Amino acid sequence: MDILAVLNLSEIALYFSKMSMFPLFDLAYYIVSILYLKYEPGSVEVSRRNPIASWMCAMLYCFASYIMADILLGESPLHYFNNTSHILLATAVWYLIFYCPLNLFYKCVAFMPVKLILTAMKEVVRVRKISMGVVHAHHAYHHGWIIMALVGWAKGAGVALISNFEQLIRGVWKPETNEFLNMSFPTKASLVGAVIFTLQQARWLPISKHNVVFLFTIFMVVTKVFMTATHSHGSPFAPIEAFICPIIFGNACGIYDDHDRVCSRDNVQSCTPSNLSPYSAKTKEELNEGTRKKKCKKTE
Amino acid sequence: MDILAVLNLSEIALYFSKMSMFPLFDLAYYIVSILYLKYEPGSVEVSRRNPIASWMCAMLYCFASYIMADILLGESPLHYFNNTSHILLATAVWYLIFYCPLNLFYKCVAFMPVKLILTAMKEVVRVRKISMGVVHAHHAYHHGWIIMALVGWAKGAGVALISNFEQLIRGVWKPETNEFLNMSFPTKASLVGAVIFTLQQARWLPISKHNVVFLFTIFMVVTKVFMTATHSHGSPFAPIEAFICPIIFGNACGIYDDHDRVCSRDNVQSCTPSNLSPYSAKTKEELNEGTRKKKCKKTE
Amino acid sequence: MDILAVLNLSEIALYFSKMSMFPLFDLAYYIVSILYLKYEPGSVEVSRRNPIASWMCAMLYCFASYIMADILLGESPLHYFNNTSHILLATAVWYLIFYCPLNLFYKCVAFMPVKLILTAMKEVVRVRKISMGVVHAHHAYHHGWIIMALVGWAKGAGVALISNFEQLIRGVWKPETNEFLNMSFPTKASLVGAVIFTLQQARWLPISKHNVVFLFTIFMVVTKVFMTATHSHGSPFAPIEAFICPIIFGNACGIYDDHDRVCSRDNVQSCTPSNLSPYSAKTKEELNEGTRKKKCKKTE
Repeated sequence: MDILAVLNLSEIALYFSKMSMFPLFDLAYYIVSILYLKYEPGSVEVSRRNPIASWMCAMLYCFASYIMADILLGESPLHYFNNTSHILLATAVWYLIFYCPLNLFYKCVAFMPVKLILTAMKEVVRVRKISMGVVHAHHAYHHGWIIMALVGWAKGAGVALISNFEQLIRGVWKPETNEFLNMSFPTKASLVGAVIFTLQQARWLPISKHNVVFLFTIFMVVTKVFMTATHSHGSPFAPIEAFICPIIFGNACGIYDDHDRVCSRDNVQSCTPSNLSPYSAKTKEELNEGTRKKKCKKTE
Repeated sequence: MDILAVLNLSEIALYFSKMSMFPLFDLAYYIVSILYLKYEPGSVEVSRRNPIASWMCAMLYCFASYIMADILLGESPLHYFNNTSHILLATAVWYLIFYCPLNLFYKCVAFMPVKLILTAMKEVVRVRKISMGVVHAHHAYHHGWIIMALVGWAKGAGVALISNFEQLIRGVWKPETNEFLNMSFPTKASLVGAVIFTLQQARWLPISKHNVVFLFTIFMVVTKVFMTATHSHGSPFAPIEAFICPIIFGNACGIYDDHDRVCSRDNVQSCTPSNLSPYSAKTKEELNEGTRKKKCKKTE
Repeated sequence: MDILAVLNLSEIALYFSKMSMFPLFDLAYYIVSILYLKYEPGSVEVSRRNPIASWMCAMLYCFASYIMADILLGESPLHYFNNTSHILLATAVWYLIFYCPLNLFYKCVAFMPVKLILTAMKEVVRVRKISMGVVHAHHAYHHGWIIMALVGWAKGAGVALISNFEQLIRGVWKPETNEFLNMSFPTKASLVGAVIFTLQQARWLPISKHNVVFLFTIFMVVTKVFMTATHSHGSPFAPIEAFICPIIFGNACGIYDDHDRVCSRDNVQSCTPSNLSPYSAKTKEELNEGTRKKKCKKTE
């Protein structure tokens, strides 16, 4: 990595890789995570009537990545709850965000400049988690490259991957969609990151681990802060996907592209012929309505 | 514990703590549990057409606490099924309750005086399970106080915590509610018990374990037998909750209290303005209808 | 086993038991499994718009038996994903079946004679899996007969037992039915096989393991190939069930039999009295409509 050497960034990366996440960065992670829980419709009502259900959701928002990784590796899903101080810190954040008098804490952390800093810190934790998830899986399965990528993904994407079941605790059930069908940017980025870290772990990338972590952190922080600041929801992966998908999954995609192209020219209503399955009829609805809905929901 | 010493109860408690649960108390546990399965709407039809699905539900009613505790501690969920004699006993109870000619067995055990005795015995097993769940978790995580409380809770509350998934086996799906949103008395009591036993395990309570178990058993037996005998569903925790909740989760609760207060004075229909989210609109319905429905369902 | 000795089949059975499944038989298993995934309504649309969700479903169709058995025995659900070559082979099959130009691969393997051979090979793998599942559980629990039968069943029935959750990944949710309520032939046969292998493992059957595997494989191959060739969906277990069920779960079944008998004579509409619960009202619908739907879905 000559560029890094020239810029003397390798030393910064090494120093960065030794930086402790607890308590400051973890705190930011908890705050932003539970902030997004509060954005979920109905979550405030649940917190009023069922503090325990609300607390469980908050814990999932903060620790689902650990829970999932432990489950995937056959360990106790509560393993991370051994760190009582982390749980108490997250509980304090949950309490302040939902029950602080005058909603003061919420207003402070949702204030845009503060939120941007917290979001940046959260992404630092996310990348560290992906990297540690891959290492964790590598310890258990030395040549299980797929396992490493999947565990790293679970560590990075966190609660999003099990959002259906997190919602179920709050009495909400949306089976028609899930994170695999409508991937948000952090989920996609976590998958990409997990694959990169796995390649690095397999020594197929000629770059040291702390440099990968450093570079990927910069990418995530810049992208996510930009997206949060501009309320943008366009994925930076969209052009790459638009290029690669038709090649790999290609000719078939065309069918739907043609259909959608016709629809955008004409009246949308007339484009839902009765002989279309309810499933494919939903496609356009998702394309139109879904993106708007995602604006509120998926910018985790 | 001077009072216990004066009454010579400590010895009784010690003797009680050494009493074996199998087979008599466990039998009572299975009978009452499967009785409540039979009360569930649709469960008799399932037992007629799908004995295997019915058997699986019965096993969950009897052993969900073990299954959940094993899952939470990263062990095999079938671990307890190694005790073939327990499973066969529960299977026999399931068979007799659902398929006994003339419904004789059901009529016997559902006869109130018998049922009260069985209920009392079930509560003895429940408290023992909570205590053993905390100890079990303590062995795995010496300082994991939160893990101990959660495992103890799972051991005490049993199938209630996963009732959504137990119902799913019978083809019933009620995502709008679950045990976390509408806690029944046994679930709340199990949580309280698990916290108390965890505090005792952490030596923060100046009282020996067998005394805690004995006293909590008396509380559970008396309360549950009284509730079953009077068909009452008022939780004995209600006054404490009414006192503590407004202090801890307080000012926010007020919003809903005000709204509900207006509603009770006026026509309920007019109190559901169209701009209320479907979620909050459900609040009152749950408060009114929900309590009635709970009467049939939640007195486990 | 004199008959086997006379026919010199025992040697064939022994040779057969040593035959490796990878890669040829496993390949057939993956092809037939993913073929059935493609038959599922909506799965092609998912593969176009969400290759990752589609890939996950394909992996569940191929490896759910391993995942479930590992979960049931408290091991990592991703344990089998350590066999990278198996996963890559299944991924290649998934890619070819869903994205092959001109749908060529699909047309080849769905061509009846080819499909019959592949189905026969799949059943060979299935029986081997059941047998190995029982042995696997036996290693963990030497006297856990119920655990052995359940793990063997999970290994044989595969994705069918968790089809509700597999569908959920594709955005489909059918809580009103599941494999326990409407068992398909392979699921029932797997249960029977798991019980037989468990009895053999417990030395309650006077027959060697490779002979049981051989005989049960012949039964499964013949039955499944016949059913696939004739598009038949009548279970060969139906007569046995019709004989045994009334004896064991008997008098009660009568109620429904009488009701249904009346219904088949008269107008079906008039047979759904308003005082019937929605659950029991569905019974007939399932008996009439359900069987037709099953024809498309359940011949796995």
